[in-house]
Amino acid sequence: MKKIILASKSIDRGKLLNNALISFDFLLAYVDEEKYKKKISDPIELVKELAKIKVANARQNLSNEKDVIIIAADTMVELNGEFIGKAKDDKEAFKNIKRLAGKSHNLITGIAVSETNNPKIIVDYDTTVVKFLDLSDDDIWRYIKTNEWRGRAGSYSIMDKASLFIESIQGSPSNVIGLPLHKLFKILKEEFDVNLL
Amino acid sequence: MKKIILASKSIDRGKLLNNALISFDFLLAYVDEEKYKKKISDPIELVKELAKIKVANARQNLSNEKDVIIIAADTMVELNGEFIGKAKDDKEAFKNIKRLAGKSHNLITGIAVSETNNPKIIVDYDTTVVKFLDLSDDDIWRYIKTNEWRGRAGSYSIMDKASLFIESIQGSPSNVIGLPLHKLFKILKEEFDVNLL
Repeated sequence: MKKIILASKSIDRGKLLNNALISFDFLLAYVDEEKYKKKISDPIELVKELAKIKVANARQNLSNEKDVIIIAADTMVELNGEFIGKAKDDKEAFKNIKRLAGKSHNLITGIAVSETNNPKIIVDYDTTVVKFLDLSDDDIWRYIKTNEWRGRAGSYSIMDKASLFIESIQGSPSNVIGLPLHKLFKILKEEFDVNLL
Repeated sequence: MKKIILASKSIDRGKLLNNALISFDFLLAYVDEEKYKKKISDPIELVKELAKIKVANARQNLSNEKDVIIIAADTMVELNGEFIGKAKDDKEAFKNIKRLAGKSHNLITGIAVSETNNPKIIVDYDTTVVKFLDLSDDDIWRYIKTNEWRGRAGSYSIMDKASLFIESIQGSPSNVIGLPLHKLFKILKEEFDVNLL
């Protein structure tokens, strides 16, 4: 099996790969998200572009290594055409969850895959619809106190406490966590001759 | 918070509660599934009945304890009206996954909740549709070798390696793992005055 690098600082993405028994290393991939958010208004184009830039940057940093697979991803939470980003404090997290409660929103993840000694970069995306139960203000504050919202797009994680109020999803569950694993499986198999199973 | 007992031997159900930061104890709840499978052909009625019997049995074993919440659940995988059960060996597990590959199937979980000093038993169920990617025989054998199929209805776990070939789901993700947490949250809040958040 080739060495795999996840160009991301997301613990959730790492957990997904760990649970799927895939060994990998983390590499921090910096990209100025705000700059691209101003330039690209379509969420799908935005997450694809951000994932692609992360992979391209990681490729440069790894130019001395051979046969290393690089994976990057970028996730946005979208409600009625607006992005729900990472909250900066508990008040903003409360506001985010209150907006999402009782409704459906979209989780959109862009994924980019490349290899150090191969100029090809494959870019794809996936969308999952997530529906929350109705929540009282008291429920939301109880949730905010877990601190699970910190550093997470949309201020929640489907894997943890928020699973109590996720009524349903339509689409890939791993995509909600930030990495559509079925897409990764197909891209690596079809484009890079790597079978993750 | 009242003490919670999970009347189940399922590690996956335990993980779900752990991830949702709910503290609980396991209690083995024996029920002769085969006997009820012969009596009840409708999968929804079957999983509801099995969950109810598990809770009722656990109540009897805990009759000396006060204010203890008991939760039980039973999950079936159904494809075109047939149950896909737990595999007894790797050949049967291979056959199960081959039947599910490239298609959609139903995950049906019955859930029952009760309390030691309260005669009420609340029973509910949830259905989630799961769609697998197409898989080659080689892919399936690679999967079988992980041993993830052991002890699992349908011979897979959405949380682990099988996440690579789950294309989409429609419904509750926790229900696929064996316990629809949003239903548990609502039942405990509305019927037993317990807020899991």
